[in-house]
Amino acid sequence: MALFDLPTDQLQAYAPGPDEVGEAPDHDEFWATTLAGARDLATVPERTRVPTGLRAVDSYDVTFSGFGGHPVRAWLTLPAGAEGPLPTVVQYNGYGGGRGLPTEHLFWANAGYAHLFMDSRGQGSSWGNGGDTPDPVGHGPASPGQMTRGILDPHEHYLRRLQTDAVLAVDAARAMPEVDGTRIVVTGGSQGGGLALAAAGLAEGLAGVMADVPFLCHFRRAVDLTDAFPYQEIVQYLSVNRGHEEQAFRTLAYFDGVTHARRATAPLLTSAALRDMVCPPSTIYAAFNAYAGTDKEIVVWPWNGHEGGGGHMAPRQLAWLAERVPA
Amino acid sequence: MALFDLPTDQLQAYAPGPDEVGEAPDHDEFWATTLAGARDLATVPERTRVPTGLRAVDSYDVTFSGFGGHPVRAWLTLPAGAEGPLPTVVQYNGYGGGRGLPTEHLFWANAGYAHLFMDSRGQGSSWGNGGDTPDPVGHGPASPGQMTRGILDPHEHYLRRLQTDAVLAVDAARAMPEVDGTRIVVTGGSQGGGLALAAAGLAEGLAGVMADVPFLCHFRRAVDLTDAFPYQEIVQYLSVNRGHEEQAFRTLAYFDGVTHARRATAPLLTSAALRDMVCPPSTIYAAFNAYAGTDKEIVVWPWNGHEGGGGHMAPRQLAWLAERVPA
Amino acid sequence: MALFDLPTDQLQAYAPGPDEVGEAPDHDEFWATTLAGARDLATVPERTRVPTGLRAVDSYDVTFSGFGGHPVRAWLTLPAGAEGPLPTVVQYNGYGGGRGLPTEHLFWANAGYAHLFMDSRGQGSSWGNGGDTPDPVGHGPASPGQMTRGILDPHEHYLRRLQTDAVLAVDAARAMPEVDGTRIVVTGGSQGGGLALAAAGLAEGLAGVMADVPFLCHFRRAVDLTDAFPYQEIVQYLSVNRGHEEQAFRTLAYFDGVTHARRATAPLLTSAALRDMVCPPSTIYAAFNAYAGTDKEIVVWPWNGHEGGGGHMAPRQLAWLAERVPA
Amino acid sequence: MALFDLPTDQLQAYAPGPDEVGEAPDHDEFWATTLAGARDLATVPERTRVPTGLRAVDSYDVTFSGFGGHPVRAWLTLPAGAEGPLPTVVQYNGYGGGRGLPTEHLFWANAGYAHLFMDSRGQGSSWGNGGDTPDPVGHGPASPGQMTRGILDPHEHYLRRLQTDAVLAVDAARAMPEVDGTRIVVTGGSQGGGLALAAAGLAEGLAGVMADVPFLCHFRRAVDLTDAFPYQEIVQYLSVNRGHEEQAFRTLAYFDGVTHARRATAPLLTSAALRDMVCPPSTIYAAFNAYAGTDKEIVVWPWNGHEGGGGHMAPRQLAWLAERVPA
Amino acid sequence: MALFDLPTDQLQAYAPGPDEVGEAPDHDEFWATTLAGARDLATVPERTRVPTGLRAVDSYDVTFSGFGGHPVRAWLTLPAGAEGPLPTVVQYNGYGGGRGLPTEHLFWANAGYAHLFMDSRGQGSSWGNGGDTPDPVGHGPASPGQMTRGILDPHEHYLRRLQTDAVLAVDAARAMPEVDGTRIVVTGGSQGGGLALAAAGLAEGLAGVMADVPFLCHFRRAVDLTDAFPYQEIVQYLSVNRGHEEQAFRTLAYFDGVTHARRATAPLLTSAALRDMVCPPSTIYAAFNAYAGTDKEIVVWPWNGHEGGGGHMAPRQLAWLAERVPA
Amino acid sequence: MALFDLPTDQLQAYAPGPDEVGEAPDHDEFWATTLAGARDLATVPERTRVPTGLRAVDSYDVTFSGFGGHPVRAWLTLPAGAEGPLPTVVQYNGYGGGRGLPTEHLFWANAGYAHLFMDSRGQGSSWGNGGDTPDPVGHGPASPGQMTRGILDPHEHYLRRLQTDAVLAVDAARAMPEVDGTRIVVTGGSQGGGLALAAAGLAEGLAGVMADVPFLCHFRRAVDLTDAFPYQEIVQYLSVNRGHEEQAFRTLAYFDGVTHARRATAPLLTSAALRDMVCPPSTIYAAFNAYAGTDKEIVVWPWNGHEGGGGHMAPRQLAWLAERVPA
Repeated sequence: MALFDLPTDQLQAYAPGPDEVGEAPDHDEFWATTLAGARDLATVPERTRVPTGLRAVDSYDVTFSGFGGHPVRAWLTLPAGAEGPLPTVVQYNGYGGGRGLPTEHLFWANAGYAHLFMDSRGQGSSWGNGGDTPDPVGHGPASPGQMTRGILDPHEHYLRRLQTDAVLAVDAARAMPEVDGTRIVVTGGSQGGGLALAAAGLAEGLAGVMADVPFLCHFRRAVDLTDAFPYQEIVQYLSVNRGHEEQAFRTLAYFDGVTHARRATAPLLTSAALRDMVCPPSTIYAAFNAYAGTDKEIVVWPWNGHEGGGGHMAPRQLAWLAERVPA
Repeated sequence: MALFDLPTDQLQAYAPGPDEVGEAPDHDEFWATTLAGARDLATVPERTRVPTGLRAVDSYDVTFSGFGGHPVRAWLTLPAGAEGPLPTVVQYNGYGGGRGLPTEHLFWANAGYAHLFMDSRGQGSSWGNGGDTPDPVGHGPASPGQMTRGILDPHEHYLRRLQTDAVLAVDAARAMPEVDGTRIVVTGGSQGGGLALAAAGLAEGLAGVMADVPFLCHFRRAVDLTDAFPYQEIVQYLSVNRGHEEQAFRTLAYFDGVTHARRATAPLLTSAALRDMVCPPSTIYAAFNAYAGTDKEIVVWPWNGHEGGGGHMAPRQLAWLAERVPA
Repeated sequence: MALFDLPTDQLQAYAPGPDEVGEAPDHDEFWATTLAGARDLATVPERTRVPTGLRAVDSYDVTFSGFGGHPVRAWLTLPAGAEGPLPTVVQYNGYGGGRGLPTEHLFWANAGYAHLFMDSRGQGSSWGNGGDTPDPVGHGPASPGQMTRGILDPHEHYLRRLQTDAVLAVDAARAMPEVDGTRIVVTGGSQGGGLALAAAGLAEGLAGVMADVPFLCHFRRAVDLTDAFPYQEIVQYLSVNRGHEEQAFRTLAYFDGVTHARRATAPLLTSAALRDMVCPPSTIYAAFNAYAGTDKEIVVWPWNGHEGGGGHMAPRQLAWLAERVPA
Repeated sequence: MALFDLPTDQLQAYAPGPDEVGEAPDHDEFWATTLAGARDLATVPERTRVPTGLRAVDSYDVTFSGFGGHPVRAWLTLPAGAEGPLPTVVQYNGYGGGRGLPTEHLFWANAGYAHLFMDSRGQGSSWGNGGDTPDPVGHGPASPGQMTRGILDPHEHYLRRLQTDAVLAVDAARAMPEVDGTRIVVTGGSQGGGLALAAAGLAEGLAGVMADVPFLCHFRRAVDLTDAFPYQEIVQYLSVNRGHEEQAFRTLAYFDGVTHARRATAPLLTSAALRDMVCPPSTIYAAFNAYAGTDKEIVVWPWNGHEGGGGHMAPRQLAWLAERVPA
Repeated sequence: MALFDLPTDQLQAYAPGPDEVGEAPDHDEFWATTLAGARDLATVPERTRVPTGLRAVDSYDVTFSGFGGHPVRAWLTLPAGAEGPLPTVVQYNGYGGGRGLPTEHLFWANAGYAHLFMDSRGQGSSWGNGGDTPDPVGHGPASPGQMTRGILDPHEHYLRRLQTDAVLAVDAARAMPEVDGTRIVVTGGSQGGGLALAAAGLAEGLAGVMADVPFLCHFRRAVDLTDAFPYQEIVQYLSVNRGHEEQAFRTLAYFDGVTHARRATAPLLTSAALRDMVCPPSTIYAAFNAYAGTDKEIVVWPWNGHEGGGGHMAPRQLAWLAERVPA
Repeated sequence: MALFDLPTDQLQAYAPGPDEVGEAPDHDEFWATTLAGARDLATVPERTRVPTGLRAVDSYDVTFSGFGGHPVRAWLTLPAGAEGPLPTVVQYNGYGGGRGLPTEHLFWANAGYAHLFMDSRGQGSSWGNGGDTPDPVGHGPASPGQMTRGILDPHEHYLRRLQTDAVLAVDAARAMPEVDGTRIVVTGGSQGGGLALAAAGLAEGLAGVMADVPFLCHFRRAVDLTDAFPYQEIVQYLSVNRGHEEQAFRTLAYFDGVTHARRATAPLLTSAALRDMVCPPSTIYAAFNAYAGTDKEIVVWPWNGHEGGGGHMAPRQLAWLAERVPA
């Protein structure tokens, strides 16, 4: 892949204002109401120990209440025999993937952290090893995929449910006896990074945010800049549903990582790849520059596409955490 | 495209039995219950005249009760000023498309028929000019698209709702004062052809079935024969959800055009294209050879892909209808 | 598709002058001679009623004299039983398609207009339902397709013949007893839009021009901006025939929609799609801004590729016509 | 590329009869009349010495009469200062290419042969360095490319003109003072191989035929076996012009290399590549096995696609010629 | 992907003999000499503890002697604080990848095994997180990639070095104080699976072999069956180096997994995916059916391509090991 | 292909300085040492007459000493019977190709020049008719292909060996009795053009340089501008080997055509194609503008991709040589 986005100096300075991103006047109220509603319906998370044959970690199949009180699944992985209170990493997955298998999630528990890996409702069947969480809410005409489900009304959009799940996953983590609720860090790559930014803007008391090559940032720019999916789901929808654009972007604005970032204060480690057509670097810089917290860092991978730092990111995150939320 | 399916003589003789197609013992009971449930919830269709500027036809925006009593939209197009009772064509659309615009549906009314074009719930945003019917039912993890929504339980599968809509669209047509309920013909291409076959097997008293290059036939063979979408949605799902295959094909069997065909007796005009990787000709011959009615004909397009007969099919259908259900 | 052409404000102002487009000093003389020559050879159009089984329209197979007196085929579709004089829509087709079947052309007659759909000589075998008009003139070495046939001499270029046919199609329409020759509107999409612009610049007394996502505009810019066919036919030719470029663009200039537009005064409704790599929006704005008439409007489809407004365009055109050339 | 055609032993035995290939009863009469007509119109070839800066060869720009007396261009290349009479190689080009430049044709003259490289009328602008021969005959609706021009009547088909040119190129060679008319060999690859087979079946007194990976053999099988162009031009045409197939294949039969081969007796060296999707090996074996001459050899390239033997073929041909028509 | 290989019953019975696979008479001698030579040059492995920040495992950077005494790198991962003797898993990587980072290799140590992950010499720069082992041996003309380096002589072929490395990695593991040398299992996927089979046939005293979707099996069939890389490297080489085929396949035969399997007796767990074009299932069945050991099992993934069982394979392997080589 | 690089006026002025290209302070010393070392090891070239059956030329199979004294193969082609001293053309090949066959190299000998065509070590198996020169030096982890072999140290990089071979090929030519060592011209296209520029900067006493669409120029810009191979090999390597970029570009700088050009004074004829994604025109202008000689010319092909002038280049070069180094 060749370079295609802004030159480096313009990237670093790229900071579109709330108007350009389309921030809604009632953004905070919308989310306050949404989260309060979900928390009203929430019940205590349930968990079951699952045998994996592994000795270094203990794995649990967790079910917690997400949006609408809907059951959301997750894997909780703990250092074997840990009693806590442990610092904790809550992780979200990339688009189309599910929580997979407990044996896929060893890194953070090996490093001494509790780790909760949230399933993405209704996803989990495009790649990887599967998911277990339905999305019990139907929707109007939509482009295949989740990006445009309920796109004409922020209350009905799929991302309202998914981002609410992401916030309530933090609540669920806090309900675990081994977890130290004051030392929770959210993380994820791509869609998982977008959800980490959403949690950063919406969840209280986070100790850190690690959002890799985040998706769901500055939708309005992304759809003009790249023809890669999944941002193209939005273009596909609008190409068929001519005239829906104003309403669609009004809806998406409530879920934009840039707007969430403007409200987020926990320490941030994010990343962007300069040849990433899936999540173009300028959309990530828009979020990074808007991020309200002052302890923030962006890692730039100049030669990579959407794989970004790949396996190099985890040890880098571990070192970054060691100075802020050590295990 | 080169030839890729069976040679012609084997195609003509290709007639897999119920076991090969996976016909369920309770197929008829499943559908009797399903349709009875939907009809119990059904209300009288509503319709509104829509101004199109056209003089030769009158167009109505129809809302009728589909599966679960859910509102399903359709366009009713009548010869201008017609009072009826008219022979009537009920049409279903291809995968991903919506009912579009009333001005797109002129042929049958121009020929003297009433014409009801059903919207496909939750579709309508992949190509064309849009749809207006939501699918208010959520679902478990699924491959993008509709083929695998609810695939682990026939009661929850998307096609149960869509095929029920197709049958109730016939009911809705019969509720129109201009329609002669004894002279209703169902039609459609690709997914629309699959729905026409479903209606052929499930709706009472049809006067004809015109199913072009029908999709949704002999799922089990199709997924081994072609790597084209949308059949590949099923492969994608099963590649991630390892071990779900038995349950998935048990579910899909209730919606298989071959099984519907085995119960259908109205005169049939169908078609297949020998270079069609989307709906391979052998899957269509499986349905054609299983079709219970004796007045049946298959048009073969030896040089075409999924476009089949294209614009040549409508006049051919009109001539075929002229001998059976003349306007 | 991502955005790739000029930003909106620059698009709106994009108005290359005659020199940039390469307008020939003898453009008007070339065409006056060309049309006079063709009209000298023209004979009275012939027509035959064709049975279609449709009741709302009457269809005729028309043969009229095009360039060189060559027979050109068309479908004439009238509201059933109409005697006229009727306002009339003359339509041209997209590249590679033929006139197809009479049953494909119902919209305008349903709206109360006479409708003449011209076949494109020598085309008609790339997609759709076929054409019936040969191009009896041979040519020198050429890239596959029609764009470079006779490219070294404007007198021999294929477009001279095709655009002359387009003008004489208006003459042929005027020769029909049901047609009101003072209320003729030309239309088409893509190549059809380019031909509509050609007719707009060359035919006398048109009542309107509806040119959708027109092809054949500002060749010189198009070949540098897009790598999509059919503009790439020209690049392919020039890549082999090194050194022919000056002569080639001198030839193409006589057929450029921008130059035709500069001479056209009938009311214009055109359109462009911002993600259209086949007919890039700036090439269309070049024609729109050059258009001499003052009653002109351009519809912009910001999310679409070459499909532009799709089925939404016909009702929009009908509404636009209702204020100018009502049926 | 994987293997896709018949296994080797079946390839070697593959010998479809005249009926399978569709040989016309009047094949010989058709060609006798065609060639006689062209020869009646033929005038003496003209040639002009062209300066190339090369010392080892003398190059001439030749114009000879092809089909219809139309001027056809060629390059004649002679060993510098040769007076002859020389054995001579007449060569035809691949599809879409032209005669290019005289400096591209050195091999045979370097080996001591006279060499005439024929331009392909109307081609020469798809790849390579250009052509100079127009095809002054127009045609009916056709798929882009030459394969379907005039496909409904063998008298009007493009290949009638091109294959006639190929035969008259031999006549033209014989008219050169340096050429020994009893020692003429025809050659070419792909389309050029097809033309060499045509000349082998139609021209008198050839001393040899070297047809590499020949195109234009057993059309009927090729269109079912491969989806590669240019055979797909025929499929594209038939997919649009539904119902033309019988007439189309009747036309193509007059130009089929298998039928020409059945009448050819000069020594033959041909080749096929087992992974060649453009000219599948079984279509070539069909011609090879039908070839009437008994001094015949086929070189098989088991690992190659349409490039076949590439640069290895020329020295092999030279060695083969050395035993039959030495310089 | 559609099904493309043999039907299931023929797959299960597919057992080409040594002649079909091209087994060399001196196969065993070749390898005895090769391994003896390498072991003669071998020195004691060196290792350095690397800090990873992980608490559950101890990681070491290992350098051992491979072919020619060349230094080969590996990661050794142990359960934290383990002293052993531990059962041990030696793993090889897929084609183009390197050993990556120590933090990527946690599973087996978490399960209580010692784990040695070997770097692939000269690879490691096509995907993933890098490698650290040069291949200090040059080579003759070769297709890009490693498959054809030294293809004209088995002594010089790249795979001789790589497979020797694989065997000596087992020696290196045995030299580790924490490793129980009688309980070593080799594993890997794709190329890693091919190397595991090589080790199975060449290394003494293995306790198990887990070879996932193995590459390097039945080269002769693979190159005819699939056009996917890396098997296509061989076709590409042979298409250019015409005439090298006999020598090339004689060379490759020494490294064929089928031949190694015929000499392997340790318990085997392998897998194949029916839609895997990279390593077609019949090539794997050829090895599986030839495998000399009687405790052997093949897992078939009917819906997957080359990803095979993905993350599901590790727990399945762990369960399989629990019955044979428990931790 | 569309235009993608700088506009023409900016191209013409594009002249990045040594810092931008990364010229090393010890560039000249590096090369002085390298060449001296190679020349120390060099032995007298050997040659064998090869029978080709051609009469106009005499062909020799040459083996000369390249980098490290390694044997490098070449074809020497002379006008038949020539005794010299002749002006001489030394030619290098494009990436992936080998020296092929002697019968492929006739042009320059036909024009009266001696011609030495150098094989590219370790290449020759990607396309064409093969090569015969091994590269006996191994390397560290590398992207497939040669561009990144030894990329961390200029002493070990593949291009050090290949460019040294290119210089010593001139020495070898001078050792031929028929060659006039004062009238040697180097040439080649793509990689061959890059090698010609390297020879231009490193070999003494050249009489001319003809570098067509040269590769290996301004690496740093190329990798940001194009996503085509082979420049993408470098991006692929860096995407995996994160953090190697400074070292990698420091290595590549020693082999950059721009830096070689800055030291070259022989008359230059080069070329660039404006639609060439493989060797973007700005990278070539960077070398052209840096070229130290004042007799320099660049031919621009505005409509071509990497084929550039194709067969038109040889006669143009011949005419250019006629004024400088006539035969």
